[in-house]
Amino acid sequence: MEKLSIIKIGGNIIEDETSLNNFLKLFSKLKGNKILVHGGGKKATFIASKLGIESKMINGRRITDAKTLEVITMVYGGLVNKNVVAKLQALQTNAIGLTGADINSIQSNKRPVKEVDFGFVGDVKKVANHSIDKLIKADFTPVFCAITHDGDGQLLNTNADTIASTIAVAMSKIYNTSIYYCFELNGVLEDFNDKTSVIQQINTEKYQNLLAKNIITDGMIPKIDNCFDALHNGVQKVHIGNIAMFTKENTNFTTITL
Amino acid sequence: MEKLSIIKIGGNIIEDETSLNNFLKLFSKLKGNKILVHGGGKKATFIASKLGIESKMINGRRITDAKTLEVITMVYGGLVNKNVVAKLQALQTNAIGLTGADINSIQSNKRPVKEVDFGFVGDVKKVANHSIDKLIKADFTPVFCAITHDGDGQLLNTNADTIASTIAVAMSKIYNTSIYYCFELNGVLEDFNDKTSVIQQINTEKYQNLLAKNIITDGMIPKIDNCFDALHNGVQKVHIGNIAMFTKENTNFTTITL
Repeated sequence: MEKLSIIKIGGNIIEDETSLNNFLKLFSKLKGNKILVHGGGKKATFIASKLGIESKMINGRRITDAKTLEVITMVYGGLVNKNVVAKLQALQTNAIGLTGADINSIQSNKRPVKEVDFGFVGDVKKVANHSIDKLIKADFTPVFCAITHDGDGQLLNTNADTIASTIAVAMSKIYNTSIYYCFELNGVLEDFNDKTSVIQQINTEKYQNLLAKNIITDGMIPKIDNCFDALHNGVQKVHIGNIAMFTKENTNFTTITL
Repeated sequence: MEKLSIIKIGGNIIEDETSLNNFLKLFSKLKGNKILVHGGGKKATFIASKLGIESKMINGRRITDAKTLEVITMVYGGLVNKNVVAKLQALQTNAIGLTGADINSIQSNKRPVKEVDFGFVGDVKKVANHSIDKLIKADFTPVFCAITHDGDGQLLNTNADTIASTIAVAMSKIYNTSIYYCFELNGVLEDFNDKTSVIQQINTEKYQNLLAKNIITDGMIPKIDNCFDALHNGVQKVHIGNIAMFTKENTNFTTITL
């Protein structure tokens, strides 16, 4: 099987022009088949507030009403995605920007209303791995923003980490697939106050050990649980680190395997 | 040579949800290879004014400054393009939304500053017909908005009619290519006050005749000159009419040939 790298960058990289340019330079040099998934950043909140659209939160979680979805479609699907594509083209990477609606690549279900109505939020149902593969085989580099669709004409806001992992799981039927989650730290840390204390290898046994010792806590637990989910569903390796983690020079990041 | 239809719709169709839905239904039923090109409509002006960005006009022509380009990228490249794609997916058409930056499909030159600095406006330089053809061969239906790029990372606002005709000319090296310009009238009219007085066939000789008789005047002249340019550069036929013109039921529209 050929290799495929799925690289996810968050809002913190998107928001900062210098970080974004540095990341895109490294990404464009990465050899082999690759897919980029990007989050949105605070630009959507900024545009929404300028347009007089209030960000509604329930129990600390953002609600995507119709107006907010419009802004997300404009900012993630238009402004951010197309500028990333244009920048990659300047770096000789033949990028193609996509939402889940394009080539029906990611269909999702509108999240059912239980205690909270999250609005136009989608939970991924189906990834069209063979359609995505047609783009890869044509030597295009897919660049996904965090928008999916329901197949009935409705766009839906979807978590970018989930998009990265569900694409990775689906593509693992065709490729030896790895995920790279780029974030603000160098990796999963042994000591949160020491940015260099990166735990380089985590497997199932080590993870249980780290949990028992309370070294991995809070917000990191669902993140790593998701990584193991992906690994249990066909993904080879999941890496967590900074924007330089997939370069040869940087070997200081966290790799998670079963 | 296989056939390819390039269909261009203007802002008036995009703006009106019912017209857009009606058009997309007809478009999705059209058999054979096809490409959709859409203009923007007034939504961009509306969003810009809400964001406090003034529309600058010089000699009656719009100037695309950096802020206006951001809005155009959000509205045309994001909101309009991705909603059209989602609607087409619901109609079983496997659409893929594109700017000229995606797969480096349309490179343009920033318009040189002469008497007027138009800002971030691009004049088309190169269409990557073989890359676009890879999408068609993969059974995807390209949906272009009116944005191109300069190859150095800069997106550029570009006239949608020009995008349709330059794509058509480039694709005519591979396909027997026709353009359909959908607009608010049924075609080129013999008598402007009689909406049914459609001139069904115009060729070079007939055109000279219509010009001499002052039947074709004003804004229609550059439009038809552009059609002849496309025909002189390899396009087979250009059709002008309403949104139903490419259906079997409608035979009342204008066809232009050499």
